[in-house]
Amino acid sequence: MSNRVYNFCAGPCTLPLEVLEEVQRELVDYQGTGMSLIEMSHRAPEYDAVHKEAMSLALEVFEVPEEFSVLFLQGGAHLQFAMLPMNLLHEGRRGAYVHSGHWAGAALRDAKPHGDVYTAWDGEGHHYTRMPAPEEIALEENTRFLHVTSNETIGGIRMTRWPALDVPLVADMSSELMSRPIPWERFDLVYGGVQKNLGPAGAAVVFVRESILGGTNRALASYLRYDVHHEKQSLHNTPPVFVIYVIGKVLKWMQRKGGLRAVEREAEARAGLIYQAIDESDGYYRSPVAAEDRSLMNVVFRLPSEALESRFVAQSKARGLVSLKGHRSVGGCRASLYNAMPYEGAAALAEFMHEFRRGNG
Amino acid sequence: MSNRVYNFCAGPCTLPLEVLEEVQRELVDYQGTGMSLIEMSHRAPEYDAVHKEAMSLALEVFEVPEEFSVLFLQGGAHLQFAMLPMNLLHEGRRGAYVHSGHWAGAALRDAKPHGDVYTAWDGEGHHYTRMPAPEEIALEENTRFLHVTSNETIGGIRMTRWPALDVPLVADMSSELMSRPIPWERFDLVYGGVQKNLGPAGAAVVFVRESILGGTNRALASYLRYDVHHEKQSLHNTPPVFVIYVIGKVLKWMQRKGGLRAVEREAEARAGLIYQAIDESDGYYRSPVAAEDRSLMNVVFRLPSEALESRFVAQSKARGLVSLKGHRSVGGCRASLYNAMPYEGAAALAEFMHEFRRGNG
Repeated sequence: MSNRVYNFCAGPCTLPLEVLEEVQRELVDYQGTGMSLIEMSHRAPEYDAVHKEAMSLALEVFEVPEEFSVLFLQGGAHLQFAMLPMNLLHEGRRGAYVHSGHWAGAALRDAKPHGDVYTAWDGEGHHYTRMPAPEEIALEENTRFLHVTSNETIGGIRMTRWPALDVPLVADMSSELMSRPIPWERFDLVYGGVQKNLGPAGAAVVFVRESILGGTNRALASYLRYDVHHEKQSLHNTPPVFVIYVIGKVLKWMQRKGGLRAVEREAEARAGLIYQAIDESDGYYRSPVAAEDRSLMNVVFRLPSEALESRFVAQSKARGLVSLKGHRSVGGCRASLYNAMPYEGAAALAEFMHEFRRGNG
Repeated sequence: MSNRVYNFCAGPCTLPLEVLEEVQRELVDYQGTGMSLIEMSHRAPEYDAVHKEAMSLALEVFEVPEEFSVLFLQGGAHLQFAMLPMNLLHEGRRGAYVHSGHWAGAALRDAKPHGDVYTAWDGEGHHYTRMPAPEEIALEENTRFLHVTSNETIGGIRMTRWPALDVPLVADMSSELMSRPIPWERFDLVYGGVQKNLGPAGAAVVFVRESILGGTNRALASYLRYDVHHEKQSLHNTPPVFVIYVIGKVLKWMQRKGGLRAVEREAEARAGLIYQAIDESDGYYRSPVAAEDRSLMNVVFRLPSEALESRFVAQSKARGLVSLKGHRSVGGCRASLYNAMPYEGAAALAEFMHEFRRGNG
């Protein structure tokens, strides 16, 4: 495929080309069964192998300790915003939230109808351009968990200093899932939509500490219960077959690359190129976020004027560098550099940034 | 593809071959964009066109009047079991349920934690082999809706006589979605998982009367609110892009066939062949269900012994007629004959049934 572009979209987003080509080859007749995988019973042995392999690869690639179970659910991170308080905040426990930006705000807002939650730190005074230092987080009594949004896709910040406090952490890692190792001992639950680093849209992955499943709320419809999905190994109802199938292939691709550490080094290298282009531009490109909290997945930056930003987006697109426009709520530019973005894509963007500055100084 | 089988699976299930081939062709590079549709932002114009077209085709093909809105959600019918009482049974209203079998029971069980519900008719005394006559349904005071499961996938029965009562109907039509016209004036809401007649697993479609959305519960997380999904046109969060894309193609294929009436006639013809093979077998094949409530989608039947049933399943598979084993909870055989099953598939099965009886009489 000669005209493949570099796709900097914030999600859904670029996937490994070799995975797409494999999916294409297998689409009509899956392994000589005479049918497509998407036509097959989710109880069929062929799908069962796909399902189990994706689950075990998710645990292996993300270096998840054996105390955790992995669930593939539908409804994206949004449904998790609701399931989390429903399952964990019964019996009068409270949920503390770090309000670090757009997505943390959404998680908090959606939790309110289903549990007693409060803001333990609010980045509003800093226009959501930085994460809190652990000592800035104010926990109240009877807190069951501290919820953090480890990477804000729109704000372009990430949490590098995981709080070590008296309550377990719960993290929405949607836009940086499986791009870095995390200190699992501090977590009860980690979740994220899969449509950034793992596969097509249509699922969320949830890593849950098994020991907490004995104490989750049972007075819920089955689909809303973590314990049910755990017990049924994410086959309580018909799972999102195609999405899980592609996730399995992406995880195998990550393994071939060298696993989580290799992926993390590549993320640092890619983002490093773009931040360097910003920092060496004599203020032509500006990053609005605190230097120590810069996201490796979503690099946001401004140009001297909105007119130049529009021209930048248009000219980059003509060069095969697409989806560099910032989120409509904040403007500017954003380069999302997820796991499947080749180094060459980031290098091409950095090169274009230098050129554009010279031509539009 | 020479070795394509006839797939009688109850779902996920057979899809039109021409749809699969189209999806395969477009998978790596969607319409010359240099990327796959599954890598594209759900706000991109190319996906937006796919999304809007699937929505308008769903309304058009199912002959839905303009008072209704269509929603594409995740979580399958299972999440609808919860969302329905959450949204409609606040303010002390009650939900009446026709308990016609496995799936009606699941809907009722999952509703209980989220609303005041009761059984308005119970088929248990008939071993769930028939639907109620409308006059058998006992409504109580303050009932907001009557929930029916119009086709029981496992029991193999369907509701032909839609109750005309003083309360609006709500129907789970998962296993017969868009296979027959329905009297929309009696309904407030119709829903179903899409993985039978419409596409791959990973979504539910909900048709909701717009006038009720002003009175649904707002004290819910956004993902659980019908009014939010309606207002955002099923783009409140990242939708299951691939599933909706395939649904659009399946709906166009239905349109090319002649629409809902043509699809219904074909369903009658296919199921007619199998029921005829049963009825003309001098009791060798037995249908356990009431003749007037026979499903056109899921034909369940027994053979003289379990040993013969096993042999039937094995020999049919060798002939390229696959997934004829009945659900594990009831045993026997089941031929699911969804919209995409060619007439030739049903004819081949009927022929095999005659042959098998002659050889194993």
